[in-house]
Amino acid sequence: MSDMVENKQIILKEYICQGYAKESDMVTQVSKMSLKVPHGSHGIVVKNLYLSCDPFMRSRMTNSESNFVEAFTPGQPITGYGVAKVLDSGTPNLKKDDLVWGMTGWEEYSLITDTDGLFKIEHTDVPLSYYTGLLGMHGMTAYAGFYEVAAPKKGDYVFVSAAAGAVGQLVGQFAKLLGCYVVGSAGSKEKVDLLKDKFGFDEAFNYKEEEDLAAALKRYFPDGIDVYFENVGGKMLDAVLVNLRLHGRVAVCGMISQYNLEKPEGIHNLMHAFKKRARLEGFIVFDYYHLYPKFLELVLPYIKEGKINYLEDTVEGLESAPAALIGLFSGRNVGKQVVVVARE
Amino acid sequence: MSDMVENKQIILKEYICQGYAKESDMVTQVSKMSLKVPHGSHGIVVKNLYLSCDPFMRSRMTNSESNFVEAFTPGQPITGYGVAKVLDSGTPNLKKDDLVWGMTGWEEYSLITDTDGLFKIEHTDVPLSYYTGLLGMHGMTAYAGFYEVAAPKKGDYVFVSAAAGAVGQLVGQFAKLLGCYVVGSAGSKEKVDLLKDKFGFDEAFNYKEEEDLAAALKRYFPDGIDVYFENVGGKMLDAVLVNLRLHGRVAVCGMISQYNLEKPEGIHNLMHAFKKRARLEGFIVFDYYHLYPKFLELVLPYIKEGKINYLEDTVEGLESAPAALIGLFSGRNVGKQVVVVARE
Repeated sequence: MSDMVENKQIILKEYICQGYAKESDMVTQVSKMSLKVPHGSHGIVVKNLYLSCDPFMRSRMTNSESNFVEAFTPGQPITGYGVAKVLDSGTPNLKKDDLVWGMTGWEEYSLITDTDGLFKIEHTDVPLSYYTGLLGMHGMTAYAGFYEVAAPKKGDYVFVSAAAGAVGQLVGQFAKLLGCYVVGSAGSKEKVDLLKDKFGFDEAFNYKEEEDLAAALKRYFPDGIDVYFENVGGKMLDAVLVNLRLHGRVAVCGMISQYNLEKPEGIHNLMHAFKKRARLEGFIVFDYYHLYPKFLELVLPYIKEGKINYLEDTVEGLESAPAALIGLFSGRNVGKQVVVVARE
Repeated sequence: MSDMVENKQIILKEYICQGYAKESDMVTQVSKMSLKVPHGSHGIVVKNLYLSCDPFMRSRMTNSESNFVEAFTPGQPITGYGVAKVLDSGTPNLKKDDLVWGMTGWEEYSLITDTDGLFKIEHTDVPLSYYTGLLGMHGMTAYAGFYEVAAPKKGDYVFVSAAAGAVGQLVGQFAKLLGCYVVGSAGSKEKVDLLKDKFGFDEAFNYKEEEDLAAALKRYFPDGIDVYFENVGGKMLDAVLVNLRLHGRVAVCGMISQYNLEKPEGIHNLMHAFKKRARLEGFIVFDYYHLYPKFLELVLPYIKEGKINYLEDTVEGLESAPAALIGLFSGRNVGKQVVVVARE
């Protein structure tokens, strides 16, 4: 059969029970697949172009009922956000050569049977890889968490942790565009410089160089924090809680510092926060995708006018994906971690 | 001068740095005072009738900048919520024999210079002592926390801790009147029986008899908790966090289990809750007093129709006040703890 091709895939070997994920938890294999949609299927066959490495993928490597997204299937390719080109389609909404972003496989070609969660890419006058992040799930996460959950006002004092990450860098820029004072934390001098020089944060600091995080925050926010965009959890959250202003808001996007721990660290300062009538709220981007057109309307002009900067950390080739994913947890990436599988 | 009287007072001896408050931290003394408002003052002189003992008073015994209400002044009478009769007035809004509720002193007579925070009692066809609780700060706290913060819907699964307390017993009844399923926790069999038999909770349990609070909650809420009205903090909060339903809401009223601790217990399960897109929000009744007329409109008919039950634990005489206050922290009281200073 002429439409059968070799398909390189990144497979999760087995569930990780505890501790840090390692490259060796994944393996590259080559299988065969057809580039035609099976007869009668409403799915699509795509060629994967760009894949996104994301912290939340760690929790999918463990089979826990507390996951907010389904666990991976051991022996099967890892799945994640990506940009892909339609090769064959069994659904009327998509046709050959359409570009889509959404959940796909960590492999060269994927058969996607559930196409409801995919977004068709309509604007191609921006880099396609942006749809793995800025114009995809991460941009929407920043938008929903900042505008919808944190309910910011002009002049608010805003703190963003993991600020050089895919979501954090956008939250900071949204906050600046709204007229807020914004401080970000990150884990290297390089990232701190980026936050100030490239992303326009008012201040930024390296949390690894601070012995007392609460004191560091007090230094940058002598009058306290109105909005905390939470990406890390643990000690940083505790330090923020004692620095919240009256009616402070914590939009909890993630807690990357906790994902590899068997038992999460204890948080001791909730009472401080609640005495300030603070609100802490977890959110997930899935609940806000109906706002995607509104989001694009806001963000596309900003990108084209250079008012939003965006930094990608790309690695070439599917084989590089496991190391890129693992690197997230030691903060090796600078900017959004993208795997280039193919450019077209 | 004939208008000078002896005035018995409960004095805080000095700030408590750590640990449990004790009766001996307070002392009864007798001073002299005039029953006339000083010339030119806009204050009032009142005779105190009923005083309220409240958990939050513990934090006012420590001079900490993290307090949400001002600390007491050592050497001066303790202050708290009470019902009082106006003996002399320098303000046009209040006249002799008017009844008020609000902040007053733990003494027989008080000169209240700041009358803005007082509420004039307009409805006297209910027991006057109710204005120390059900119709005062506690009722408003239950009302604001439940209706405004927790945003409940008919059919919600509602859990209330310290449910036999002044606020908790009302929250449970509000929830039942709205058509929710309500479970309460308390610290004795007597209180548990009260919750079920007098206050109409669907279920209630003694938290002291549960080795695994999370398992206990799972038993009463097999499908999870929509609304948690938080009065205690610590282990109970952690147990609730793993049992929250999607978009669960925690209205944080207080954390009585933590007030006497030097360092609050660590909370480990926040991530569970945020994965469920839960919202945790601290609130304070002060922010909601503008709703007091609306609250009375709802609650007074319920009281008169017997649809809201209310239980007071009264002690007689100002001298009994310190023991009554300390008793709160060991859960000695059954229902709202009231001190009867005088009945008219």
